[in-house]
Formats: sequence, C-alpha cells, structure tokens
Amino acid sequence: MAHQPGLNESLLAFHQVNVLQKWSMQQFIDGMRRHHIGAIAIWRDKLREHGATAVARMLTGTGLHVTSLCAAGLIATPDPGEGASAIEDVKRAIEEAATIGADSLMFVAGGVDPRDKNLESTRQRVVDRLAGLTSHARAADIRIALAPLHPMACASRSVLNSLRIANDWCDALEAEDVFGIAIDTYAVWWDPDLPRELARAGKRICNFHINDWLEDTQDLRLDRGMPGDGLIDIPGIRRMVEAAGYTGHREIEIFSARWWQRDPDEMIRIVKERYHTAV
Amino acid sequence: MAHQPGLNESLLAFHQVNVLQKWSMQQFIDGMRRHHIGAIAIWRDKLREHGATAVARMLTGTGLHVTSLCAAGLIATPDPGEGASAIEDVKRAIEEAATIGADSLMFVAGGVDPRDKNLESTRQRVVDRLAGLTSHARAADIRIALAPLHPMACASRSVLNSLRIANDWCDALEAEDVFGIAIDTYAVWWDPDLPRELARAGKRICNFHINDWLEDTQDLRLDRGMPGDGLIDIPGIRRMVEAAGYTGHREIEIFSARWWQRDPDEMIRIVKERYHTAV
Repeated sequence: MAHQPGLNESLLAFHQVNVLQKWSMQQFIDGMRRHHIGAIAIWRDKLREHGATAVARMLTGTGLHVTSLCAAGLIATPDPGEGASAIEDVKRAIEEAATIGADSLMFVAGGVDPRDKNLESTRQRVVDRLAGLTSHARAADIRIALAPLHPMACASRSVLNSLRIANDWCDALEAEDVFGIAIDTYAVWWDPDLPRELARAGKRICNFHINDWLEDTQDLRLDRGMPGDGLIDIPGIRRMVEAAGYTGHREIEIFSARWWQRDPDEMIRIVKERYHTAV
Repeated sequence: MAHQPGLNESLLAFHQVNVLQKWSMQQFIDGMRRHHIGAIAIWRDKLREHGATAVARMLTGTGLHVTSLCAAGLIATPDPGEGASAIEDVKRAIEEAATIGADSLMFVAGGVDPRDKNLESTRQRVVDRLAGLTSHARAADIRIALAPLHPMACASRSVLNSLRIANDWCDALEAEDVFGIAIDTYAVWWDPDLPRELARAGKRICNFHINDWLEDTQDLRLDRGMPGDGLIDIPGIRRMVEAAGYTGHREIEIFSARWWQRDPDEMIRIVKERYHTAV
C-alpha cells in the first residue's frame, strides 16, 4: 500500500454500528468524547431504545456532530397497505433525525418481493414513494441520503444497487435540496462506471462511508473489513469522491460480526490509525 | 408464479457441478442417459481425474452434447510469471475442450490481487491476455465464453462483473468467431442494464446458465438456488436472452452445498419439473 499523507482528523466520523453490541448509547457518546472523535452516525435501533428526544438530550453539550441517522426505508413492497405503513415509518425517522440534529437520514430502498419478482416495477415504486416524501423531508430540513447497496443485497435489502441508479433517481425526483447520495466503498468499488457516476453525482454526495472488502468474506451482510484489511483501493475512491466536490466527513462504518467481538476502545484506536494509513 | 407453457426438453442441459460430490464422471454420464438428458457441461476438475482423452472415450456413443468445459482462466495476476503460467493453463483447457468436443470453454477472469488493488489495470490486463489466446482458440475451433460473475465475486474470482463489461471486451477483442458470452441468471439478474446489454450481445451469447437467488443466501459461492426457489424472474430473463437471438441450451447450473447433499436422481427429477414451471 502506498504511503498516505495524514488526513485531517476533524473529518473522521465513526458509525455507531461499529460498536453496536458492546456499547450502550451513553457508552458510545462517552467513548467518542474520550477518543476525541467529533462526528458520529446514530444507529436507529439504538436510538429507539431511548427515543429521539432522550438521545438529543444525551448529545446536548457534547459537541458531537451527527452525520446521519441510519437507517429507514424498506418501502419496496408491492402491497399498498404495507407500503403506506413503511412510508409512515420513514416520516417518523425524518422526525427523529431532525430531533437529534442529524444532517441526513440514510435511506435503504428494500429488496425484491417474492410475490412480485419484477425489478423494474419495484424500482419505479420506490421512486414514486420517495417523491411523496419530498415535502415532509424539506419541512424538517433533513436530507434523504439514497444509499446504493451492493448488488448482493438486491433480494434482501435494496433494489438500489449502483450509483448510476441513484443518480437516475435523483434526476427523476427533481429535488436536489432534499435527495442526496451516500457513497459506501463496499457497495461501489467493483463498478466500472464509478469514476463517471461520481463526477455526475457531484454535490449530491452527502455521506461517505468507508470499509473494506475482505478476500475471505464469510457473510453477505456482517463481514465487512477494516480499511486496509481488504481489496478495495480506498484512497483512490476517496480522491474521486473529493474531486467530485465532496468536502464532508469520512465515516468508518464496518458491519462486522467479527469486529463486534472486539474491545471498542481497541477498535477505535485501530480506526484512527487506519484513517491515516488506509483511507 | 405465472404458469409457463412447457419448454422443449431437448434444449435442457445439466451441469456436472450440480452433482459434483455424489457422482463420478461415469455415474454422471450414466445418470444423464438414464434420465434422458441430452446435453451437459463438464466440470474441469472432474475431467482431470481421468484426462480429456479418457473422458472423450467415455462420451463416445452416448449421444451426449457437451455445451462447455467449465472452467479456465484466472489470468488477472499482476505478476508476469504467474500470468504466463495461467495463460498456458488456459491453452491446455482449450485442448481439453476440443478433445471432448465441447462447444465452448467457460472463462473466469480472476479477481483483484492484494498486491495491486487496481481494478482498471486488472481488467485491461485480462483483455490483453485474452487477445493473445485468440489464434489458439480459433485453431482448436473452441469458443471462449466470457462469463460475467456477480459483483460479489470481484475480489476472489472475477473482475468481469457485468454484461456491459463483457460486451466492451468483445468489442475490444474484435474476434466474434472466438469470443462469446455466457449469461448466468445469478450474475446478471439485478442489473438495470440487462435488457439493453442482452440486445447488444445478440449472437455473442453462447451459453445460458440458469439458477436462482435465495432470499436467505448463506454463502457467497455455494448457495445458489433451484429455479423457482428464489427471487429471480427467470422466465423474464430467458425470454430476453432468446429475443436477443440465442437458440441454444438452457442449462441448469446450481453451485450449492445444500444440493450436493441431496440424492442426484431426486435432484434431476426436480430440475426436469422446474424446467417446465420455473424456466
């Protein structure tokens, strides 16, 4: 790996999902302050253990910047009743994100339904339902971050599987103040369209999630790697993201059952080291 | 699932990998005849237990059509010496494919190397090395079937991750008599470019592999599903493949540790049933 010059630590963000199993919300907030990390993403299931108002109170005075509330969505169902309930839940998440002062709400589309199996109509349904959320998000001043997931999540989690699809959706939604795009190295690294679509995304990029693809990946969802431990040219992607105009946080987000077993303080020390050597 | 009209059984092909663990080469050949299946793909590791000449002898008089020898490739390495060895191995595979009278040799590109991590140069290296195999394959009258694998195989098995890349490579190679494309439902089903790129591929399509994506997929390589058990609109993809001009076999190829535990005769009965209801 080529030597990386040290990056500005004030742009390092740490995702709560990294330490989901070992630390409560309060332990997480305290840990971030102890390690002088200034920006965090909040995991929605953890937030809901307390409610958004209580979490906002816990955050008051800490100086912690909240990059996003993660996640809401799963609005791809072909059933209109289920769709309406799912949309109501996204609206609640928008309120929660506003309550804790998050920059954005991470949006995960939902997968293909076995009752349907039609990808084209599923994708169209998601865009139509997103359009219906525009004024609600605008009123709350919350950016909805469309998060392309890896194509291997198409069945189970999201039919939004490439940056090109995200750009196409943003074009169709015509609400650049509301809909942004979250880039995740894990989701997009393989994509030959990446340079072109990052340039096209430009100011739409509102979150940048960083983690690595392990050569011996054991699980489709919970085996992401620490930056530097895998095959992704993370510095190359970071440079393209920043050349596209993104100036925000570089957020380490590692969904990993392996890392969940580790001591959070040790993990944070490794993240801070890798931020300089592998990001 | 919508009712499918019965398909022509003479176009059903069965991949040896489906019964890799329970049946020897001879048991496989005998099983295919017993179940009146007329076309097969041969798994290269199995072939090498006997050598191509011996397998050709076993096939003589059976009437079995060999759609492909599967697989060779893995020529993505940045190391020139390793690259030269890998190319020699592909040449041996071309000879083996010719010896058993296969239509094509399934080509798997190879993944990203940790010494390199550069996807663009890795892909270019594969195309350059493929170009060097053109005259060899032409002399042997073997089609090299470029097989896009799912993007989740990019690190470990293949940097050829979409049909668009395969079409771009065919354009660059300028040898339409030698280089074809193998469509695998599992690799391409999520791709919004699929309709356009299938039409673009047209007569390049030389193999069509069918299997399903299970909602609860447990493994990145060995948990493919029986057609009908998953989320893929297989009939929809088959119709597009055939509308593009493909008239060849519909080959059931299920890499699955689950199915390897089952009785091969039972599996074949289920494949024949699903060929009519889910393909």
